[in-house]
Amino acid sequence: MRLRLDIAYHGGDFHGWAAQPGLRTVQGELEGWLGRLLRLAEPVTLVCAGRTDAGVHARGQVAHVDLPDSGTEPNGVAVELARRLRRALPGDVVVRRVSVPPPGFDARFSAIWRRYVYRLTDRPADPLTRTMVAPVRTAVDVAVINEAATALLGLHDFAAFCRARVGATTIRQLQLLVADRVPAGHVEVTVRADAFCHSMVRSLVGGLVEVGTGRRSPEWLAELVDRDLRSGEVPVMPALGLVLEEVGYPVPELLGQRATQARARRELPKEQP
Amino acid sequence: MRLRLDIAYHGGDFHGWAAQPGLRTVQGELEGWLGRLLRLAEPVTLVCAGRTDAGVHARGQVAHVDLPDSGTEPNGVAVELARRLRRALPGDVVVRRVSVPPPGFDARFSAIWRRYVYRLTDRPADPLTRTMVAPVRTAVDVAVINEAATALLGLHDFAAFCRARVGATTIRQLQLLVADRVPAGHVEVTVRADAFCHSMVRSLVGGLVEVGTGRRSPEWLAELVDRDLRSGEVPVMPALGLVLEEVGYPVPELLGQRATQARARRELPKEQP
Repeated sequence: MRLRLDIAYHGGDFHGWAAQPGLRTVQGELEGWLGRLLRLAEPVTLVCAGRTDAGVHARGQVAHVDLPDSGTEPNGVAVELARRLRRALPGDVVVRRVSVPPPGFDARFSAIWRRYVYRLTDRPADPLTRTMVAPVRTAVDVAVINEAATALLGLHDFAAFCRARVGATTIRQLQLLVADRVPAGHVEVTVRADAFCHSMVRSLVGGLVEVGTGRRSPEWLAELVDRDLRSGEVPVMPALGLVLEEVGYPVPELLGQRATQARARRELPKEQP
Repeated sequence: MRLRLDIAYHGGDFHGWAAQPGLRTVQGELEGWLGRLLRLAEPVTLVCAGRTDAGVHARGQVAHVDLPDSGTEPNGVAVELARRLRRALPGDVVVRRVSVPPPGFDARFSAIWRRYVYRLTDRPADPLTRTMVAPVRTAVDVAVINEAATALLGLHDFAAFCRARVGATTIRQLQLLVADRVPAGHVEVTVRADAFCHSMVRSLVGGLVEVGTGRRSPEWLAELVDRDLRSGEVPVMPALGLVLEEVGYPVPELLGQRATQARARRELPKEQP
């Protein structure tokens, strides 16, 4: 029996999503509570849509878990599990919803996009939001950022913005990259792509901040696209400003098809000879 | 030499503003650092515009302090003190500005209004804002709150909403009381008055929530105004949702006059016989 969990957490006291021996992680915390609350004989594994790094937050993380058949009707299990998790979990992680997903649903491979928001401020420090908004020392020009961001949109090799992983592609479809100055005074950078490689959002924002503060030109940023190596010139922004806000899934009928596509290796379209 | 300090803090780890022996308070923390950074022989006293309770936050607290004459030009002292405080203070309290105020300025008695915002949510818990947004179990109707709030505006005796203090008046001029559902989904109640008595904002919001969730009628709320005793029927909202956002001062020429007025005891206008 597969269940879907919609999860929010403050990343400040977690060593990221992925379970690590001896460290407090979101996956470890949740898997531990699932085992205790459901009195499972064997440990279970949560599979998530976006493996967030240490210190990164989430409002819209999605995960699935496969439970042994207990003879109880799945919707009943979901409702009861949601109730028990609400009581048991510490305040910095919340399971907002437990549901029975459509057949073929896979939290990671069914996802068609992930949306992150990065928050930064060039204003005086605000102690109320200091665990969620990263300080930047120089004034940021949001219009300059948005002009420069358009060069990054579309299907590209983002190797310059990714921490290298052997054998993994760094080709991604960047769908949205836009900055807004919000009424509270800080800047929110919204980023949406089919998927992200490691440290990609924080590097994209790092690159944009270089341009938005005037330290680098928009041309410098544009030339980093479709390079095939990580660039040491791109600063990686601190984790605390980043929130996984939402994960998109297709309509139920297309779930299986999508998972097959996502497992296939992404490639850039070949140029015509 | 009098200096003005503009201060922001996250109230979560403070036992309120007012210094108390053996407890961490905003006043205690700041007075301690002023003494150390300026190597003062005698302790100094900070006077603030709004003495916030334990757990209450501030973005716009204002305080003044009188320093012994060091022979240095006051603006120079202010700039240097701001720089040192920025380096020395822990992350949950920030002195945003140190300035030399106009003659006659008194952080408490010159203030002509205080603006607070109370944040609450009737949506699923958000671990990212849990130290700043108070949960409410029932759905809140913002339109109903705003309709009911108008009955409280103006010069009234707010004794029903205040913790009793012998000899202190509870007559206040309530200038603004309005609720908004913000894009993030929670509700912000903005309250502005010439001044507030103890627990008044949290009680006003508590009364509005009773009405906005349908537990009490708007008439119940309206009848609490101009009573002369604290009402046990009004719930006091938790401290964590409250932020002192801004303090208003008159133009410099009127500062002295304002302080004299504020020291005088407020009275309701006598009815004609």
